[in-house]
Amino acid sequence: MTDKPVWDQYGDYLQVDQILGAQRPRSHAAGQGVHDEMLFIQFHQIYELWFKQILFELDDVLARLSADVVNERDMQPILTYLGRAVEIFKQLEGMIDVLETMPPQSFVDFREHLGTASGFQSAQFRLIETRLGLQRKSRLCVFHGQFDENLNAQSQAAIQSAEKQPNLFDALDGWLSRTPFVNLGGYAFWSEYRTAVYGMFDQKIAAARAALSGEVLKNELEAIARGKEKFEAIFDEKQHASAQAEGRWRLSWKALQASLFITIYRDEPVLQAPYNLLKCIMDVDALLARWRFRHALMVQRMVGLGVGTGGSSGYEYLMATVQTHRIFTDLFALSTYLIPSRLLPALPEEVSKKMHYQYSAKA
Amino acid sequence: MTDKPVWDQYGDYLQVDQILGAQRPRSHAAGQGVHDEMLFIQFHQIYELWFKQILFELDDVLARLSADVVNERDMQPILTYLGRAVEIFKQLEGMIDVLETMPPQSFVDFREHLGTASGFQSAQFRLIETRLGLQRKSRLCVFHGQFDENLNAQSQAAIQSAEKQPNLFDALDGWLSRTPFVNLGGYAFWSEYRTAVYGMFDQKIAAARAALSGEVLKNELEAIARGKEKFEAIFDEKQHASAQAEGRWRLSWKALQASLFITIYRDEPVLQAPYNLLKCIMDVDALLARWRFRHALMVQRMVGLGVGTGGSSGYEYLMATVQTHRIFTDLFALSTYLIPSRLLPALPEEVSKKMHYQYSAKA
Amino acid sequence: MTDKPVWDQYGDYLQVDQILGAQRPRSHAAGQGVHDEMLFIQFHQIYELWFKQILFELDDVLARLSADVVNERDMQPILTYLGRAVEIFKQLEGMIDVLETMPPQSFVDFREHLGTASGFQSAQFRLIETRLGLQRKSRLCVFHGQFDENLNAQSQAAIQSAEKQPNLFDALDGWLSRTPFVNLGGYAFWSEYRTAVYGMFDQKIAAARAALSGEVLKNELEAIARGKEKFEAIFDEKQHASAQAEGRWRLSWKALQASLFITIYRDEPVLQAPYNLLKCIMDVDALLARWRFRHALMVQRMVGLGVGTGGSSGYEYLMATVQTHRIFTDLFALSTYLIPSRLLPALPEEVSKKMHYQYSAKA
Amino acid sequence: MTDKPVWDQYGDYLQVDQILGAQRPRSHAAGQGVHDEMLFIQFHQIYELWFKQILFELDDVLARLSADVVNERDMQPILTYLGRAVEIFKQLEGMIDVLETMPPQSFVDFREHLGTASGFQSAQFRLIETRLGLQRKSRLCVFHGQFDENLNAQSQAAIQSAEKQPNLFDALDGWLSRTPFVNLGGYAFWSEYRTAVYGMFDQKIAAARAALSGEVLKNELEAIARGKEKFEAIFDEKQHASAQAEGRWRLSWKALQASLFITIYRDEPVLQAPYNLLKCIMDVDALLARWRFRHALMVQRMVGLGVGTGGSSGYEYLMATVQTHRIFTDLFALSTYLIPSRLLPALPEEVSKKMHYQYSAKA
Repeated sequence: MTDKPVWDQYGDYLQVDQILGAQRPRSHAAGQGVHDEMLFIQFHQIYELWFKQILFELDDVLARLSADVVNERDMQPILTYLGRAVEIFKQLEGMIDVLETMPPQSFVDFREHLGTASGFQSAQFRLIETRLGLQRKSRLCVFHGQFDENLNAQSQAAIQSAEKQPNLFDALDGWLSRTPFVNLGGYAFWSEYRTAVYGMFDQKIAAARAALSGEVLKNELEAIARGKEKFEAIFDEKQHASAQAEGRWRLSWKALQASLFITIYRDEPVLQAPYNLLKCIMDVDALLARWRFRHALMVQRMVGLGVGTGGSSGYEYLMATVQTHRIFTDLFALSTYLIPSRLLPALPEEVSKKMHYQYSAKA
Repeated sequence: MTDKPVWDQYGDYLQVDQILGAQRPRSHAAGQGVHDEMLFIQFHQIYELWFKQILFELDDVLARLSADVVNERDMQPILTYLGRAVEIFKQLEGMIDVLETMPPQSFVDFREHLGTASGFQSAQFRLIETRLGLQRKSRLCVFHGQFDENLNAQSQAAIQSAEKQPNLFDALDGWLSRTPFVNLGGYAFWSEYRTAVYGMFDQKIAAARAALSGEVLKNELEAIARGKEKFEAIFDEKQHASAQAEGRWRLSWKALQASLFITIYRDEPVLQAPYNLLKCIMDVDALLARWRFRHALMVQRMVGLGVGTGGSSGYEYLMATVQTHRIFTDLFALSTYLIPSRLLPALPEEVSKKMHYQYSAKA
Repeated sequence: MTDKPVWDQYGDYLQVDQILGAQRPRSHAAGQGVHDEMLFIQFHQIYELWFKQILFELDDVLARLSADVVNERDMQPILTYLGRAVEIFKQLEGMIDVLETMPPQSFVDFREHLGTASGFQSAQFRLIETRLGLQRKSRLCVFHGQFDENLNAQSQAAIQSAEKQPNLFDALDGWLSRTPFVNLGGYAFWSEYRTAVYGMFDQKIAAARAALSGEVLKNELEAIARGKEKFEAIFDEKQHASAQAEGRWRLSWKALQASLFITIYRDEPVLQAPYNLLKCIMDVDALLARWRFRHALMVQRMVGLGVGTGGSSGYEYLMATVQTHRIFTDLFALSTYLIPSRLLPALPEEVSKKMHYQYSAKA
Repeated sequence: MTDKPVWDQYGDYLQVDQILGAQRPRSHAAGQGVHDEMLFIQFHQIYELWFKQILFELDDVLARLSADVVNERDMQPILTYLGRAVEIFKQLEGMIDVLETMPPQSFVDFREHLGTASGFQSAQFRLIETRLGLQRKSRLCVFHGQFDENLNAQSQAAIQSAEKQPNLFDALDGWLSRTPFVNLGGYAFWSEYRTAVYGMFDQKIAAARAALSGEVLKNELEAIARGKEKFEAIFDEKQHASAQAEGRWRLSWKALQASLFITIYRDEPVLQAPYNLLKCIMDVDALLARWRFRHALMVQRMVGLGVGTGGSSGYEYLMATVQTHRIFTDLFALSTYLIPSRLLPALPEEVSKKMHYQYSAKA
């Protein structure tokens, strides 16, 4: 930082030469110079940089959220960093607009130089999935065998290591399960809520009986019964356990209760940040799905029905992962179990009070 | 336009009072005043306005593209109006960011006032699908029976009428089929291209035999044979006819040839606009799919696994239409049949010449 | 809601006929049928719908934020509704992509039918500005005289009425001024912060004296002195009062202190929502400026250097408002007065404690 | 490409290790570990990658457009590559959403480690401006003296070299000036257009005289005269030369005529690509301005009124360049000189014919 030219300050700080010296288009090396290969390379390098940033944010979030007691002051950085990941995922999706300026013919022209290189080999992308909570058993395989068999030993080890560390799904589940307000003193949210829900169904049945008759009444009562069964499936611990065993629910029973509690009473001061966190994680989940979908459409445009780079099944595989690789669908399923606000049980004064700030409590 | 106050000019021109007087939130009328119902209403009203604009553009495009001989001067407005539809579809998708600021609980709070009203009843949206080329037989049904059985007679009639008029898929197919350059004088693109493709496979076989042996050679030769079969399926008219009968191709054989021709020789002056048109239609198709996907994710967030408004199956139905209601996948499939530029047959001088402008021909 | 056809449910709910019947292109009426006038009309109708929605959100936010004591539970809806306004402003900006598909020649073709109608006459847009806090004295005038002289009496009255009601700037200033933690018990943030800032400058002076000499030292000491003066201007109540009188600051002295306090200690539980509110309001301000800028560029493209619709000075006026009509630049200016975290005074235990939740306090 | 593990294919191709090894946060090295510095570094590295891609596209476009006779087949790649630059500029603007997730306090925390490094030192950004056509004499200086005095010798040399090579403005002007159809055989567009314009003003004068009288007539006639003067300023070669000398026009007189010709007769087959090129260049110009504006707002948020990194004047300088560094405003000014289509002179048959394709001409 002494007598170096000023330029070097900027260049040194950002390692500009190292970054800008890392593009080696093979069609150019082969003397064919396909113009669009440069875009293809830089596009994917930018992806790897964004992937690194996402992992950097997730690591910090996981460290804070995995604490036995999450520091209340940590909710702000957790939301900031996850919110940043959300913005980055939007960039990943939007960037495809640039790549789609490439005519498919151009891709065919330099594709033969790619050898077996393939986006499926991005270790960082696999790590993001794992850090978010995608389980090995849930992964579709590109070919057969293990999903990571075409990665090298170092990358495989990194993923296996990540699988043993906390991931966002488990950290979230653990944190939710510890929500104190769901059972506080004599207050038990779950039984209060069940009473309200069953009361709602009783009202519906009474209204149907009063207004309808015959076949129409019968159909309506059956519809109400089906609606009630859905709720019973979450109110009953055994049914939830079965659902979990069969892979229909991944959230633990306690976490499920807490996430509904947070969703319903989201305006209570102590629940505002937790609610925003649930929303932010749904955004991450939806954006990852949107990126996968958009990416699959782009691949379809570039390679049609052909095999993908690296011999993969290309489009078909990618499109299949859009739904099967989703991680937080349980949070989306929560809305199934909401009832109108006017039917909700009020929070007891002594529970609500504990959710406010020290300062206001004094007043 | 005489002595009215200036304000009335703006208000009269845009019918501001009529537009701003059209929001009647039912929860407000019922005295419950759910804040977010206003957004829900205005959001869908904006959708209907954009739908009207898309139909307005499509009608103009279809009129021009359905002519026996498309006026060359029409290619510019065709591309402008379809390009505008592309931009509108982007707005439709992006607008969901606004709706997703609504907590699912708010939706539950005013949903009971919606009765059987449902987005499935948007006649304009159905008309867009039909005008683009979605066929009745390809439609998923929300419930059972005909897809439009929950529309009123007027809307049903409008859709049935649209089904008898030109749609974008058929107009495109017809226009492509008439491309003169594919067979011009003694030149026949299809046989030239077939020769080039088979030459490529012969080279691959020779290279494999020279470099490999035993099991590896056998596998490689089988892979090459599979690749060749894919091409044979389009070179052979009968195979294409079977594929069409089975619904694997919708483009006619002539249109398929022309679209490949345009894709390959896209830089010839007379092909520049046609190539841009193919790309633009792929953009429309991809954006409609993206909108459907995004919309389905939003519905999942708002209603979970529950039934949709109007009693529909909601999320599941919407997600299923994402792929099944796509119309122009044939254009995406074209990339399957591209080969590297260095192997492409050159256009004969006399064919190429006819693709240039009068003016330059003089020089 | 009884035996009406299902379609009517959707149509009735959204007033689809009323909305879709409100487009009356004058060039069509005049028999010239300029295709693009339809887009022009619908585009601005959608703007008016979004404007209505923004006003609807602002009204709710203002009602909550203007309370003598803002209910802590209201912070969530305040942030939700303002965040929604942010998303709507993004739509307003992005929609211009659609309008820019219109060739300027098309605009010239139907422009003669617009008479004196002009976007400057949008009463709702003026109301948004006023509700946010733009003052009559700060407004640029399109022509001369009062900015609203080309609006009709009803619109003028609506704006004058809005000017007497709470606006977001004043509501924010009042709310900030009441922040209790800035002076709590024996704790006085402002003197603590001043001590830290002056300590920082003392360190800088000592470091400069130790390392530099002669002319270089003199320059460095002058630079440090200038930096210090900037801070003195806010620490000193009289200087702030002068700055306010001269229009260099609009925030009150108390609100300025509180906003710096919130910015610095943003992770304290009780300050998380307030910090997010400051950020959200900056987003509103920046997006309004971005929309103005984008809109001015679009107008320049459509009418060049000519006069705008309604005889206004068009582009020049619009571009001038981008900066002069900004409202919350004081919040952006806050960053001028931040110092590195390592130099910040720690919050006293008893102050920090009051910023936490009742629940955690028990533990 | 032999027996290396598959992973290395992807990693080798993209130089993943080199790219991901280039982040060296100084606050981390200094043991302070400011979390957000990583984002700051990667953000600007991605900017440099996109800058390289823009330069790569511009170089190709300039080579094609600078030819004495632009090959008609080159219009497609020229539009593709410039269209790609447009998409990249959109990314540059959108990416700021990610950076704005960083609290200004975080920036203050690692800023002291940046030394004199500053974004003003990005040589690639300066090269983009120069390649587009920004002239040294038009540049605002950050401090004083030459704009590039804080760049090192190598970067200064690169910019000076670029200043001697073709830039997009000059290449466009030269190409426009050679448009053959503006004067073809006996046809002279400029005199035809002048006649039509003056005819329009004569009509307006007659209409005013017929309908108005007294002061109102006088005012109207003066307004018409002012409108006419604007046109005279471009019809008269000497007035245009003066305007050029005074910096009010940069386009040559011939290029000005051709660009109006192209704008008016944009649907003629031979003018479709040229019109799209003019529009695309306006998009580039507008997006660069939008990026500058957005970037300036972001800097204002991060550093307030303070000096920028590297000691620059920061926000004020950046905001000033938004307008002063625009390059293609002449193209936006063209709309000033459009008249309604119904008044336009028709193209003579023999001119129009030459603008069509060989093929259609035969028919």
